Amino acid sequence: MITPRTAAGTLELLPREQRVFQHMFDIIRRGYEKFGFNQIETPVFEMRDVLLTKSGGETEKQVYFVQSTGGIQQGHEADMALRFDLTVPLARYVAEHERDLAFPFRRYQMQRVYRGERAQRGRFREFYQCDIDVIGKDKLSPAYDAEIPAIIVQIFEELKVGDFTIHFSNRKILRGLLAGYGVEDEEKQKLILREIDKLDKIGADKVHEAMVSLGLTNIQAQQLLSLITSQGTKDEIVELLRVLDQKPNEVFAQGLAEVTQVVETLRAMGVPEKRTRLNLSIARGLDYYTGTVYETLLDAHPEFGSVCSGGRYDDLAGHYTKSNLPGVGISIGLTRLFDQLNANGLLPPAPATVQILVAQLDPALAPHYLALATELRSAGFTVEAYLEPSKLDKQIKYADKAGIPVVLLLGGDEQAKGTVVVKDMAQKTQSDVARGDLAATLRGILGA
Amino acid sequence: MITPRTAAGTLELLPREQRVFQHMFDIIRRGYEKFGFNQIETPVFEMRDVLLTKSGGETEKQVYFVQSTGGIQQGHEADMALRFDLTVPLARYVAEHERDLAFPFRRYQMQRVYRGERAQRGRFREFYQCDIDVIGKDKLSPAYDAEIPAIIVQIFEELKVGDFTIHFSNRKILRGLLAGYGVEDEEKQKLILREIDKLDKIGADKVHEAMVSLGLTNIQAQQLLSLITSQGTKDEIVELLRVLDQKPNEVFAQGLAEVTQVVETLRAMGVPEKRTRLNLSIARGLDYYTGTVYETLLDAHPEFGSVCSGGRYDDLAGHYTKSNLPGVGISIGLTRLFDQLNANGLLPPAPATVQILVAQLDPALAPHYLALATELRSAGFTVEAYLEPSKLDKQIKYADKAGIPVVLLLGGDEQAKGTVVVKDMAQKTQSDVARGDLAATLRGILGA
Repeated sequence: MITPRTAAGTLELLPREQRVFQHMFDIIRRGYEKFGFNQIETPVFEMRDVLLTKSGGETEKQVYFVQSTGGIQQGHEADMALRFDLTVPLARYVAEHERDLAFPFRRYQMQRVYRGERAQRGRFREFYQCDIDVIGKDKLSPAYDAEIPAIIVQIFEELKVGDFTIHFSNRKILRGLLAGYGVEDEEKQKLILREIDKLDKIGADKVHEAMVSLGLTNIQAQQLLSLITSQGTKDEIVELLRVLDQKPNEVFAQGLAEVTQVVETLRAMGVPEKRTRLNLSIARGLDYYTGTVYETLLDAHPEFGSVCSGGRYDDLAGHYTKSNLPGVGISIGLTRLFDQLNANGLLPPAPATVQILVAQLDPALAPHYLALATELRSAGFTVEAYLEPSKLDKQIKYADKAGIPVVLLLGGDEQAKGTVVVKDMAQKTQSDVARGDLAATLRGILGA
Repeated sequence: MITPRTAAGTLELLPREQRVFQHMFDIIRRGYEKFGFNQIETPVFEMRDVLLTKSGGETEKQVYFVQSTGGIQQGHEADMALRFDLTVPLARYVAEHERDLAFPFRRYQMQRVYRGERAQRGRFREFYQCDIDVIGKDKLSPAYDAEIPAIIVQIFEELKVGDFTIHFSNRKILRGLLAGYGVEDEEKQKLILREIDKLDKIGADKVHEAMVSLGLTNIQAQQLLSLITSQGTKDEIVELLRVLDQKPNEVFAQGLAEVTQVVETLRAMGVPEKRTRLNLSIARGLDYYTGTVYETLLDAHPEFGSVCSGGRYDDLAGHYTKSNLPGVGISIGLTRLFDQLNANGLLPPAPATVQILVAQLDPALAPHYLALATELRSAGFTVEAYLEPSKLDKQIKYADKAGIPVVLLLGGDEQAKGTVVVKDMAQKTQSDVARGDLAATLRGILGA
């Protein structure tokens, strides 16, 4: 006998939880589609050289390699590996199918990704990412940078996971400021941005220290820290940047112009002001981002960290094509979000998958139960017919355990009268309903 | 520069095809839910010993093993492998979560599975399976064997892939007949059933030959072949079996009783007669099945082979639990079906994902375009706003290439008049529509 168990670092759900997960998944999908994004799906594995364009990096340490029995027998090195995000597959997809795609290419992709993380609570080796990206050819207006948070706001409002704020900034602002302070070297700028990204975790003193060790003076470090921790409305922060007492600088000016356009476009799209915040301390650790960056926090649970992050990048697929493909995108880490909400008792309610159980009261009437179930399915309900001759008690318990909100009972008497007994599992009530009124009564109970 | 390419044996789709695939996927999912099935998802990999309960089998030759960078460096053997079907994960799931599940447990699962097939047209190394199963505890009424084809009939009718027939039989009938012929050995019975399963491929002569070499007399082989190729309605075939000139036999009698119940239950559920056929030559190659077996053929394309198969099994999870868990299930191989339909120009039509493009006619009016898009999304449309300042010509071409059926044009004149120009891409017509009539006009064009 083999002990049935799942691999460490995976999230497998019971049907009731799976229903909530799928409900959230569907809301995200519909939200992406509403804004005109097209779905793509890519294979779970990519060719090794395609996936690992930069070998020896941090990523490679976490990659899962895939090999067939035949390959192992022949002593070959694995030539495929599981994707570790959806961005590399997107880059490969766009480069491979470039001629068949319409640009700006708007795609959504909601699939699982794989990372050989150390096994610990909240770290997953298999998890869903729900990504959208808009990819331009040679250019892409900063207006798209505003559309992304507008989409996320709609989705998170519909998810009903409490108040949330999308914090955004533009890496060009900090890079321009650093250049103005005399830190012209791009690599050094990136290192400083990476320290700023840790502000929440390590605190202002440590960041100040790191900045100084990377070449800023004490005063500059202080000024910068004070600027990036400024509180205020988006307009106030934009104004603050506009009047900054510093030499004009091309990169800074560009960043400011882009941020201003994002603020204006968000307004034109009718995004509620409170849902987005211009937060200059948002830097994102990934060097990959070149302009706008986003992080999303649940207001009541900042300890969850960012539940939806992304940004603008200059060139998506430089490893695969000579075409210049700038883009902007964002990703919801649904598995992690679901797990955090679940652990804190914050999962949103989800509609029942199975609405109605037709019980088997009298085996002799079985054909009538089947006909009743068929009739109700045609009326749009999801219906299970209990096909096993079994005690009523056991059938009611089954409905309760399975979370089915309505049980229908039909005996000889009801059949003769043309009625059905409707049992409301939540209210623990039951009533005799004429067949002609059945659908309306059920809709009332189910709120459908 | 690395050549962007997908691994052999995978099916990656362009957005237009993906939309059709997803449309079919959604119909299947809704169909399963309508009949009260609960979704589950399992990790893509299972522990090696859990997945490969019978080592050295045919299956193991096709398994993909998964190993992390760390594991490879330490010279470990891979301890995980990709699932090759959804049945083994289901067995593991039910055994692992037995106490938390309500029985009969009705689950659907639609995920990808992996097999190291030889790379050739129509053979996939990664493909979707869309499974439903009902799992009983200790017992499961044969009425469930009738529900399965009833569900598949609804789904395939909605898929609009032409006429189809679900062929079904019961392995007990053939096994009972063989026992009556003196072939009592179960292993030998299974071997003969496996030959019968090949009837369509190798022809009656070869099957006859094989039967004789496995112990039947010439006459017996002839009788059996003549019986299993009998044409007739379900009732006629049942009648034929009832009056068979043979010693009564427990296994045969059970098979006949079960088949009879399936035929009656199908009728009670209102399944159209022509959609199912009692076909005694259906045996399924897998020894796994113990009673009812199903295969589904597209009437106009028998050369596709069975596009949806399954059956009844006595014990799902004997490797993992002492509980006796009989079940019945079926699987749609969606990737292969989609590929076959596509290759033959038979893909069903799918609704457009993006219904409306709001063009950017005049960059100065950009905020109005965004507001218009937001307004239409609230009215339930899927809307893309073109945010790039760009020639109208190029935007129209973009909509055409992306398959967007309606483009909206809003210039200064229209803005002043309170109208919008609606461009119907399919009809190649356009008209000036008052803002108040816009939603209704769009619904008319989109047939929504």
